[in-house]
Amino acid sequence: MDGALQAVLDTMRTLGSVRHFRPDPVPLDVLCAILEAATWAPSARNAQPWFFVVVQDRQRKAAIGELYLKAWRVAQSYTEGSGADRDIDGRPGYRGMIRAVDDLAAHMSETPVIILACLDTTQLGPMAQHGNIIAPQSAYASIFPAVQNLMLAARSYGLGSTLTTVYSAVEDDIRRACKIPAHVHIAALIPLGYPSRPFRHVKRKPVDEVAFLDCWGTPLPTRGRSSK
Amino acid sequence: MDGALQAVLDTMRTLGSVRHFRPDPVPLDVLCAILEAATWAPSARNAQPWFFVVVQDRQRKAAIGELYLKAWRVAQSYTEGSGADRDIDGRPGYRGMIRAVDDLAAHMSETPVIILACLDTTQLGPMAQHGNIIAPQSAYASIFPAVQNLMLAARSYGLGSTLTTVYSAVEDDIRRACKIPAHVHIAALIPLGYPSRPFRHVKRKPVDEVAFLDCWGTPLPTRGRSSK
Repeated sequence: MDGALQAVLDTMRTLGSVRHFRPDPVPLDVLCAILEAATWAPSARNAQPWFFVVVQDRQRKAAIGELYLKAWRVAQSYTEGSGADRDIDGRPGYRGMIRAVDDLAAHMSETPVIILACLDTTQLGPMAQHGNIIAPQSAYASIFPAVQNLMLAARSYGLGSTLTTVYSAVEDDIRRACKIPAHVHIAALIPLGYPSRPFRHVKRKPVDEVAFLDCWGTPLPTRGRSSK
Repeated sequence: MDGALQAVLDTMRTLGSVRHFRPDPVPLDVLCAILEAATWAPSARNAQPWFFVVVQDRQRKAAIGELYLKAWRVAQSYTEGSGADRDIDGRPGYRGMIRAVDDLAAHMSETPVIILACLDTTQLGPMAQHGNIIAPQSAYASIFPAVQNLMLAARSYGLGSTLTTVYSAVEDDIRRACKIPAHVHIAALIPLGYPSRPFRHVKRKPVDEVAFLDCWGTPLPTRGRSSK
């Protein structure tokens, strides 16, 4: 396998969610480079309807952190009360993941950088009306590829991150805290920094459990190809 | 800049939408490798609620191609009739893009491989109810990062692709053509193959037009960093 291919695959394979960060700041030129990588992503109509707000200011991070924790506590008590995770809460890794999510929520304000990846609804053409997204599939197809580029590029620079949407219930308040206009939707909140633990290979379902050939139910021949 | 970092950035920067393909088939082990790369993406609750249907069969591609063209013609006449693209149709590249989209729609059945990236709503926990997605932000955050990984990995193998959602109006029919159950949503249709033209750097808005520091409207200092 050639070196460039190997580098790309290794980057993806070690892009686990990072929720514990060292306090070291992230250099501005690195931030610019990963934002530029984000903009190389595709978007519907190639409209590039994105904006990125990079939050480093201590007070603003504190405000976001407080709001984020509030939203997480609401989500957590809903999940526990309704058994919303009963389909996955027995899986290995689930409890550890929830503990890490809880830690992150409690310490969000200490994250070196928080990036808000936004969709400007006025640039979504027929996908939005009066500031509301009416075609979510195409709209979100125009921001999450950019978010993935951002996180992969960050990983290449040795930075960890995690894609969060749990702040959704307090989106209006976060928007106000950063003076983001009402027609701009915060599609993802991404804490970013140098990880306090080494990157590891992610563990996922094997390909032969999630891929079919030609039609649903027909196995894709994957012998010898799945996760090593 | 180190080689691995350069390889990752180069891959992203040359991941333009490819809509014209050589007829050469895509080896199965390459398909498996890029699907595996897709599964390394993050997803809400790490539920990995994805399935990928890899369509190579000539008859099935013909059925999908016919449906896709029908959906594209409807979208096209809506766009022309309503002026839905008036915000972007004066930009350089717009007419060429539409011509390429039209070519792709007319020749979809000749594409070597069509990948349907699906969300299983029964694995979306509180994000779906009775087969309907009720939290589209978190649901699509659980599939488009995987789609981006898939396209980036494909690019690393010399394969071109493009993320499409325009088939949305005929999703039920495509689902039937591939025997995909009703509770499984096709989030993206990705034509894939060796490109008939060389990969080029994508052209995008410069970072300083789409990034802010700390709050909306405050420029991120990017001097000397934007697209070279």
